[in-house]
Amino acid sequence: MNISEVISKTRKKEALSSEEISWLVDSYVKGEIPDYQMSAWLMAVCINGLTDAETSKLTIAMRDSGDVLDLSGINGVTVDKHSTGGIGDKTSLIIAPVCAACGIYVPKMSGRGLGFTGGTIDKLESIPGFNVEMRFEDYIKAVNSTGAAIISQTGKLVPADKKMYALRDVTGTVESIPLICSSIMSKKLATGCDCILLDVKCGSGAFMKNKEDALKLAQLMTSVGKAAGKKCRAVITDMNEPLGDAVGNALEVIEAAEILKGRKKGRLYQLCMGLSANMLELAGIGSYDRCMELAENAVSSGKALEILEKMIYNQGGNGKAIYDYSLLPQGIYKHEVTAKESGYISGINSERIGIAALMTGAGRENKESHIDHSAGIVFSRHTGDHVSRGDVIMTLYSSSVRDFTESAKKALSAVSYSSEKPEVQPVIVRKYI
Amino acid sequence: MNISEVISKTRKKEALSSEEISWLVDSYVKGEIPDYQMSAWLMAVCINGLTDAETSKLTIAMRDSGDVLDLSGINGVTVDKHSTGGIGDKTSLIIAPVCAACGIYVPKMSGRGLGFTGGTIDKLESIPGFNVEMRFEDYIKAVNSTGAAIISQTGKLVPADKKMYALRDVTGTVESIPLICSSIMSKKLATGCDCILLDVKCGSGAFMKNKEDALKLAQLMTSVGKAAGKKCRAVITDMNEPLGDAVGNALEVIEAAEILKGRKKGRLYQLCMGLSANMLELAGIGSYDRCMELAENAVSSGKALEILEKMIYNQGGNGKAIYDYSLLPQGIYKHEVTAKESGYISGINSERIGIAALMTGAGRENKESHIDHSAGIVFSRHTGDHVSRGDVIMTLYSSSVRDFTESAKKALSAVSYSSEKPEVQPVIVRKYI
Repeated sequence: MNISEVISKTRKKEALSSEEISWLVDSYVKGEIPDYQMSAWLMAVCINGLTDAETSKLTIAMRDSGDVLDLSGINGVTVDKHSTGGIGDKTSLIIAPVCAACGIYVPKMSGRGLGFTGGTIDKLESIPGFNVEMRFEDYIKAVNSTGAAIISQTGKLVPADKKMYALRDVTGTVESIPLICSSIMSKKLATGCDCILLDVKCGSGAFMKNKEDALKLAQLMTSVGKAAGKKCRAVITDMNEPLGDAVGNALEVIEAAEILKGRKKGRLYQLCMGLSANMLELAGIGSYDRCMELAENAVSSGKALEILEKMIYNQGGNGKAIYDYSLLPQGIYKHEVTAKESGYISGINSERIGIAALMTGAGRENKESHIDHSAGIVFSRHTGDHVSRGDVIMTLYSSSVRDFTESAKKALSAVSYSSEKPEVQPVIVRKYI
Repeated sequence: MNISEVISKTRKKEALSSEEISWLVDSYVKGEIPDYQMSAWLMAVCINGLTDAETSKLTIAMRDSGDVLDLSGINGVTVDKHSTGGIGDKTSLIIAPVCAACGIYVPKMSGRGLGFTGGTIDKLESIPGFNVEMRFEDYIKAVNSTGAAIISQTGKLVPADKKMYALRDVTGTVESIPLICSSIMSKKLATGCDCILLDVKCGSGAFMKNKEDALKLAQLMTSVGKAAGKKCRAVITDMNEPLGDAVGNALEVIEAAEILKGRKKGRLYQLCMGLSANMLELAGIGSYDRCMELAENAVSSGKALEILEKMIYNQGGNGKAIYDYSLLPQGIYKHEVTAKESGYISGINSERIGIAALMTGAGRENKESHIDHSAGIVFSRHTGDHVSRGDVIMTLYSSSVRDFTESAKKALSAVSYSSEKPEVQPVIVRKYI
């Protein structure tokens, strides 16, 4: 096969064959196709798109570039969930124990965060002693005993995505629905669960800025998942402001524990219940309404909180930390950000909040950066709330940053006001697709 | 400036500023922007195009990546001509002496051929002793004394084009009107002539397969040339079959000499007269019709032939070779290709003839290949002619290839037949733009 011809085909919007796509991915991973040819192809995809069949083939070829996990050692139906990025998204910490409490298995591999705030793995590592690496046999054992485990993704899964994503990141080719789909789905298919729920974020703080694009991505991912033999479903959820009250690693662990204690019933709780109900229904537990009831019971009965505690112990962490928050890293410096005018909060720009959180130390600027697990932002007000000039909207925390001038300025710039009460979109934009 | 942002702008069809384009070209030539980012940008240009203003800026930035020649030492108006590729195109060997005979100056820098057949430089090198390299002062002197000189392009002109063209060649990004325009025009602007005539080939054997694209390229190149302060004009000419009778280096020198001797008045002669008339008019010699008369007189008087002889002597070659063709390399092996059916020749595919000529040794497969200057093809029949089965259509020549089975097969596959006399397009499709 000839690489220039393959590139030219996509440039001219001619569909590639299964063989051409496999050869392209294979040869690129082996280093036989150089970056400068792959980046030209990725740009052609970015502008011209791929057919759904091509996206399916690309996803499968990427999945097959590394190990594909065999989860047959797990004693029941396995369900995975993926959220397409977002600020303050700690749903995995909540829904894994909730679903496990309802009798399904949630073996989860997550990533670290790069840019803005930490990923699920970084959040878990804020718990003293928590180990995100496990031998595969121990991982299976942990899932069988407790119903859930969350570990770090291994290097042997989907090397094609690792290499392609790094290239897309520096060649202006990130924003592409077929490429985002194949990147996410190749990893989800390689991690081996029977069922996959996709939480597609939509809004100013997400990849997908509008509902149409979110719907397209959701439909494409579910069809690719189904074509690969998985039970697959997507939910579209709002990301026009950060999710919940906390942004930052230990701060988000605390918020997750509060949700599981039944103490908070706002948007984050509603989202977690919706996602859990979908995962349970997908796993064949019952109707959506029945599954919703089970999920709510898992919280109100305290069963899900117990499972989170067990998960933490299974992975070497101090489970007491979800009861005694003083065991978690504490931000010794703090700063209150107050409203600069009176009126209704009409929006809180997630991207700017992400940058402000990064400035407090909650994220990584590059792969080598050290994360301050105590750092971040806690909101006391949200979109739709009325504030008077001087009211505290949020508090910034850090273990190392004493001067919050710049981060507070950035955080405040995220807040917009209106004189009339704005309409607030429900957190679940579309129940399922 | 940020390269990912620049790439993304072109991906989203947002115009780049002059500063962004200069920075992109500069940084790429310096090696500060790697190939994989440049190829992504080139693909975005290929698919989305550039505005005419962007193409102008790109051309200027490329021109300024190396030396820009100062031809003020030449004693009159300087005129350059560029043909956009084609098989059997030996027009430069004819029009340079014709125009010089009419009192204008033609200082020409040409390239070697890669793929298919040799370039103008390779054709000249088939003349014993001909030297295509000259010190700049000698080049100016030769042009002043004789009116024309054709030398090889120096390495210091437009390094950006060299690097970008090599990358385009392997990333499926050759076919792009703005990129073809900036590649050609940056070189033409750097070689420093006052006037530029562009011969845009159109047809199966050319980059531009149809008249619309040829017109677009012609208009874009002339507007870029004018914006850079040049007198600029374009002609659209037919490339649905090879130009003239001969394809191959020494064979084309012979054909050029025959034209200058006034012995051949066909399509090639018509084209050369049209191009020369345009160059002369552009240089301010007179009206198109008056210039046409002057060009024809330059041939009929024998003055242009004399100038070709002088040009050859100026550059160390044996000028007698254009009178005594036995002084040129001779193909000792030859093979006649005959019609396989009776009827009218409805077309002769230039690309296939190019490949067949390459197989006889007339071109280079890669930069290191050796050219057989004697090799090539001579046509005895053309599109529109009636042939009977067994009639000789063309003869293949070579100094090294004895077995013509494969090349003859390829050459014959270029010929198509019809039972009715086909309409033959005039060689000059559009007199000027």
